[in-house]
Amino acid sequence: MTGLLETPYGTRDFLPKEAAAKRAVEEKIFKLFAGFGYEEVVTPTMEYLETLTTSGGRVIEPHLFRMFDRNNRTLALRHEMTTPIARLAVSRLKDKPAPLKLSYNTNVFRFRTNQPGRQCEFYQAGVELLGISNAFADAEVIALAAQALSVAGLDDFKICLGQVEFAGGLLEKLPTDLQTQIKTAIERHDIVALNNLPIADTLKKIPTLQGGRDILTEAQALADNDRSRRALDNLTEIYRLLEIYGVADKITFDLGLIRDFEYYTGMVFEAYAQGVGYSLAGGGRYDNMLKDFGAARAATGFALGIERILDARKFQGVAEDSRAKDFYLSYAAGYEDAAIRQAAELRAAGKVVEVSLTPQTQAEAQASCAEKNCMELLYVV
Amino acid sequence: MTGLLETPYGTRDFLPKEAAAKRAVEEKIFKLFAGFGYEEVVTPTMEYLETLTTSGGRVIEPHLFRMFDRNNRTLALRHEMTTPIARLAVSRLKDKPAPLKLSYNTNVFRFRTNQPGRQCEFYQAGVELLGISNAFADAEVIALAAQALSVAGLDDFKICLGQVEFAGGLLEKLPTDLQTQIKTAIERHDIVALNNLPIADTLKKIPTLQGGRDILTEAQALADNDRSRRALDNLTEIYRLLEIYGVADKITFDLGLIRDFEYYTGMVFEAYAQGVGYSLAGGGRYDNMLKDFGAARAATGFALGIERILDARKFQGVAEDSRAKDFYLSYAAGYEDAAIRQAAELRAAGKVVEVSLTPQTQAEAQASCAEKNCMELLYVV
Repeated sequence: MTGLLETPYGTRDFLPKEAAAKRAVEEKIFKLFAGFGYEEVVTPTMEYLETLTTSGGRVIEPHLFRMFDRNNRTLALRHEMTTPIARLAVSRLKDKPAPLKLSYNTNVFRFRTNQPGRQCEFYQAGVELLGISNAFADAEVIALAAQALSVAGLDDFKICLGQVEFAGGLLEKLPTDLQTQIKTAIERHDIVALNNLPIADTLKKIPTLQGGRDILTEAQALADNDRSRRALDNLTEIYRLLEIYGVADKITFDLGLIRDFEYYTGMVFEAYAQGVGYSLAGGGRYDNMLKDFGAARAATGFALGIERILDARKFQGVAEDSRAKDFYLSYAAGYEDAAIRQAAELRAAGKVVEVSLTPQTQAEAQASCAEKNCMELLYVV
Repeated sequence: MTGLLETPYGTRDFLPKEAAAKRAVEEKIFKLFAGFGYEEVVTPTMEYLETLTTSGGRVIEPHLFRMFDRNNRTLALRHEMTTPIARLAVSRLKDKPAPLKLSYNTNVFRFRTNQPGRQCEFYQAGVELLGISNAFADAEVIALAAQALSVAGLDDFKICLGQVEFAGGLLEKLPTDLQTQIKTAIERHDIVALNNLPIADTLKKIPTLQGGRDILTEAQALADNDRSRRALDNLTEIYRLLEIYGVADKITFDLGLIRDFEYYTGMVFEAYAQGVGYSLAGGGRYDNMLKDFGAARAATGFALGIERILDARKFQGVAEDSRAKDFYLSYAAGYEDAAIRQAAELRAAGKVVEVSLTPQTQAEAQASCAEKNCMELLYVV
């Protein structure tokens, strides 16, 4: 019976305190998303394998938990929520007027855990903004990510902001193979590999373009083509809007930030908190993905890692907001009925009341009240 | 690309309105559970196969979605939450003082859909009350189920209440095989099969013992043994407490209600709503289950079917509480910044504000406001 009491590799339980902290953070984020007009959707935990691999194919397959349905078709547990939402957007939501503003808060699955701070099952909250491609939409999404981290209780974080078209423009005249080598080296922060490639020094500078607003000016000097210049104009406009949102102080430009270069088509960003080595949130513009589902549609969005936010809160010493129960209500033998009535009145007034399930002496009741983390003891006698 | 845009057999999407209705009902139920001192736990979506089959074994296996982890161990998607909570109770929560009051609100999975109104993936909210075996605990749990249906917006429902020990006592002197035949016939409401068995007429009456409080008196006349009499005393006491909870008017006794007779050891109940053919909630006392995990512990609890509650709400014409967004905020070209500032102020005041992502004419803004289901248009110019 080995393992009878264990959870599977890469999964975990949330005990009451942990579940309460998770719920509190998720509720705040959900409320924020709703305040911006994003509407929640819920999709199945499993999808047909072909749905999840449509846009990404072989790269994604090794990361999927696979299984069979009763008709022997291959299913897989969703590895993220962007693909299921893309499916929805081009099927049951296809007649809704653009833009679509959708949100989610759910668990996703990866067969292999290949990143620190990541489990095989983990929780994400995020938004997808579909049907519009402009800086205003991108700024709304980035501002929302920043505000989500703030409402989750984190103050000390930064958002690294890039634009894949900047590097795209600089590389566009090179052979495709070499482009891929360069992008891969940049994506992996492999400066040695990058420096060993037979390319202009200008291109080797891409990963160094990190910092404040003046990085855009520095990058302008390298931008020898329209595509790169448009990317910088786009970042300039997004930044201007983020100043109005009041979150520009969180932004660090990083023109070497590429994330998945097959996937993103415009701005990309990742959020980091002081002292946590992995990103808390990531997203960007992905205007090409929905056409793999048969309906081209512009798209931008992000996902927040809920466990990672909870880790960062702990690391930053954010106080837990899980509160004690209001009352422990106990009673002497024969006073069960009075106890039930009293508890009902208190609950009707919005109080949390744990009622003893057996008669107790007053001393026993006091001990239980403390054990059960209740603020106040009521003893009916 | 067949199926690219479909959800797998037995699964479904919740579009924004449906997801909002689901979330609203779940939040009300969660708040009710919390008010009674039940604390939420979250467990992994998958468990080791041996964990899920420990208490139930071969009966359960065909109902499980199975898959492998990276070490080739067999996992299965949880088919209910009682087993994962039992695992928690005897492992990481074993040193917590009894009673444990735990709640959950999550999805569970069944490989085969063998009941109407049931999908392969569906949502349940429920509680488990562990470590105490008395009528007071059972009454709290039944009252909580009744109040959950009420806060979910259902008025017209009833709770069928039985006690497996009543039939258990009447049958105890019969050969085990015959007992199983009788219980199976009763469980399946197969009156023909029951009447054809070579048993006393008294036993054939068990399924007819349905109705109000006076059924207990009628049953008393048949109870020729201590076990059955104790079962009736237990129901009498539970009913008395339910009167104090103010939910006794919802109770219908049904002494032929057995549910899973391998599993339950005391009171059992199911909730039905007017016009919906399947139970909305089910539960009971299962004092023997936890010892399969190595630590005997009394237990009672129930699960509510969230989709079934949503179905019943529709059927009973309960008004949806999903509200329109407060404001649609649009603007003429050049007024983007003012729009962002205005929206931030309204959101800080708790309003839901959808901001147009492009400048619009006032006529366009009016059309969008209606399309986006917003109560009021604000136009910045």
